[in-house]
Amino acid sequence: MTSSFFPPQRTLLGPGPSDVAPRVLAALGQPTIGHLDPQFIALMDEIKELLQYAFQTENQLTLPISAPGSAGMEACFVNLLSPGDTVIVCQNGVFGGRMKENVERCGATAVMVEDAWGDPVSVAKVRQAFADHPEASTLAFVHAETSTGVRSDAKTLCALAHDNNALVIMDTVTSLGGIELKVDEWGADAVYSGSQKCLSSVPGISPVTFSQRAVERIMAREHKVQSWFLDMQLVMGYWGGETKRAYHHTAPVNALYALHESLVMLRDEGLDAAIARHARNHDALVAGLEAMGLQMAVAAEHRLPQLNAVCIPEGIDDATVRTQLLQDYDLEIGAGLGALAGKTWRVGLMGHSSRRRNVVLCLTALEAALQQQGLTVEPGAALRAAQASWTAAEA
Amino acid sequence: MTSSFFPPQRTLLGPGPSDVAPRVLAALGQPTIGHLDPQFIALMDEIKELLQYAFQTENQLTLPISAPGSAGMEACFVNLLSPGDTVIVCQNGVFGGRMKENVERCGATAVMVEDAWGDPVSVAKVRQAFADHPEASTLAFVHAETSTGVRSDAKTLCALAHDNNALVIMDTVTSLGGIELKVDEWGADAVYSGSQKCLSSVPGISPVTFSQRAVERIMAREHKVQSWFLDMQLVMGYWGGETKRAYHHTAPVNALYALHESLVMLRDEGLDAAIARHARNHDALVAGLEAMGLQMAVAAEHRLPQLNAVCIPEGIDDATVRTQLLQDYDLEIGAGLGALAGKTWRVGLMGHSSRRRNVVLCLTALEAALQQQGLTVEPGAALRAAQASWTAAEA
Repeated sequence: MTSSFFPPQRTLLGPGPSDVAPRVLAALGQPTIGHLDPQFIALMDEIKELLQYAFQTENQLTLPISAPGSAGMEACFVNLLSPGDTVIVCQNGVFGGRMKENVERCGATAVMVEDAWGDPVSVAKVRQAFADHPEASTLAFVHAETSTGVRSDAKTLCALAHDNNALVIMDTVTSLGGIELKVDEWGADAVYSGSQKCLSSVPGISPVTFSQRAVERIMAREHKVQSWFLDMQLVMGYWGGETKRAYHHTAPVNALYALHESLVMLRDEGLDAAIARHARNHDALVAGLEAMGLQMAVAAEHRLPQLNAVCIPEGIDDATVRTQLLQDYDLEIGAGLGALAGKTWRVGLMGHSSRRRNVVLCLTALEAALQQQGLTVEPGAALRAAQASWTAAEA
Repeated sequence: MTSSFFPPQRTLLGPGPSDVAPRVLAALGQPTIGHLDPQFIALMDEIKELLQYAFQTENQLTLPISAPGSAGMEACFVNLLSPGDTVIVCQNGVFGGRMKENVERCGATAVMVEDAWGDPVSVAKVRQAFADHPEASTLAFVHAETSTGVRSDAKTLCALAHDNNALVIMDTVTSLGGIELKVDEWGADAVYSGSQKCLSSVPGISPVTFSQRAVERIMAREHKVQSWFLDMQLVMGYWGGETKRAYHHTAPVNALYALHESLVMLRDEGLDAAIARHARNHDALVAGLEAMGLQMAVAAEHRLPQLNAVCIPEGIDDATVRTQLLQDYDLEIGAGLGALAGKTWRVGLMGHSSRRRNVVLCLTALEAALQQQGLTVEPGAALRAAQASWTAAEA
């Protein structure tokens, strides 16, 4: 007979969700109040301000979509596109492919700019795509590809789009709170993220922000947004900042308690400090992995500190190692996705997961698992290298 | 400076969210694990079984959508409809109007069957609509109208649809767990609900179930579902029950802990017992309200026990009373929606909120508030009437 569920206590070093801090879980479990309660409305205003800080934007239309990042992605596409539009979509991993699906389901045409999985988006190719398709109204790309661990040059891509009178849809699911992200300075127009990556809140919420240009395009639409749930003209009535909130849907009250608390933590630490912490722990992890004889899958200059793609050594079985880490250490690391399945591991050091203790645990557990599979590893070399990296960073 | 949020401890007797039991909040706040963790996969299987029980169905495609009820509604429409389809949509409150929006955004045509707010869906009008529109492929109606507190005859409406070779989309957001609902016996084909009503879990999740007929229609689609996020052909890959789960989106892990716990509570109490409890407390509330001189907005035979629409007496200010209940008693009751705004209150006795203590609190607080506004109320009459109702029910 099915009874209450008690989850194991894992350390989450996969591609997300990341570890949720105890104070965020405590916030989550507080008593539910109504979604139109005056105190909840006040909380919504605070969340909006905290998200503006995280996104580095003054966009009025900044709010958490009541669903996961893939719904946030869809919210950006269905609101900005109309049938017949042309969109330049950059694909260098799983999520560019999902963008293409979104474009086509809006009745628009996707002009694909493809780069190898593990490479960043090629600025030159995007420039060429705009030259070939002057009718393109929108550029869509992923800032931090969760499937490969690659950072693309968002600032340059945004500038290129604006030079071509196009708006920018930018996926920041894995970048928000982990690496530099300046929505206003770069001029990104429709930006979505996820609660469960570098914000380290519980999964299920997608923060989004829309520029004034994006709002104008939305307000000028002649074709109704195909999704009622994600129609920003309607969502604005509830989140938009008027005195009287119009009921649209029932907000996920407790999930927003948690998001609020995670955003307060980020604001208290400070964005710059959080970004520096992600970089430091990344450097230590990479030093450790390389001392163990492992290779990173992405060139140093394009690596995401929060998502480390590691090449699985010849002769080592992907699933066996991950299962062992989970069973022996309650440690989750991620498998490769799509073209990289079986070829890479993805080690996330996101948000609250980006801590020295987790780097140490990961290196130790991986060393044990690889040795058990017959790989020759110099005992303790990884930990010494990581330690040296932290020491150097402190100097 | 924004700091941690500590919500007040309300009693939620509005139209949802309802009070969440402490054990459900405790489940919610447990450590997050990965959405592909073997233990999470096992939890998903249990949730599916528990939902099958709640819906009284053996439908394989039974799962919680990772978003609120309005996304569950959208999931049913976008998967079952294709452009050019004709759908008979019954409207006797807010949510029938939302269904119409969904139909039209799918490029389909809505044939409206309208009834007054406060009346059930007219079976005769639906019969006539099928006679006038033999091309209709789908009938959509709301089982329990949250905006008015009215129950419609779902069993008869389902039979009528099948006699006309149409599939049925049924809104059970407020009915699931509160009144009789037999998905298989009645033959409803695409059914959605919400986590935050009679299941008394936290808001943000929408349980859905699809019949074999609905699955066949989905698999035979020639036009891609316009929503990537809600495309059941894709969602099935993650929830569908094959051995290897395909990643679709990151499940809202903690919200599903809570849903699981609330479903275990329902299973332990038993559906019939839960339904009887809702009926008993409804009868007591109505006895008390009538003893206070108030009138119910809905005829006795169509009332939902879990959502009680009460006429606001002449000369009484809606918002003043609700604000007073909230401030003095931490008690939330609901305002009227749409055509009924300012004319009714909606007193929810849903799930964990449907308890004697809450009926007593509501009657006491309302009596005080109405007296303060100058209404003559016989002191204590409401409580005596409620008590008599419970005593009679026990006899």
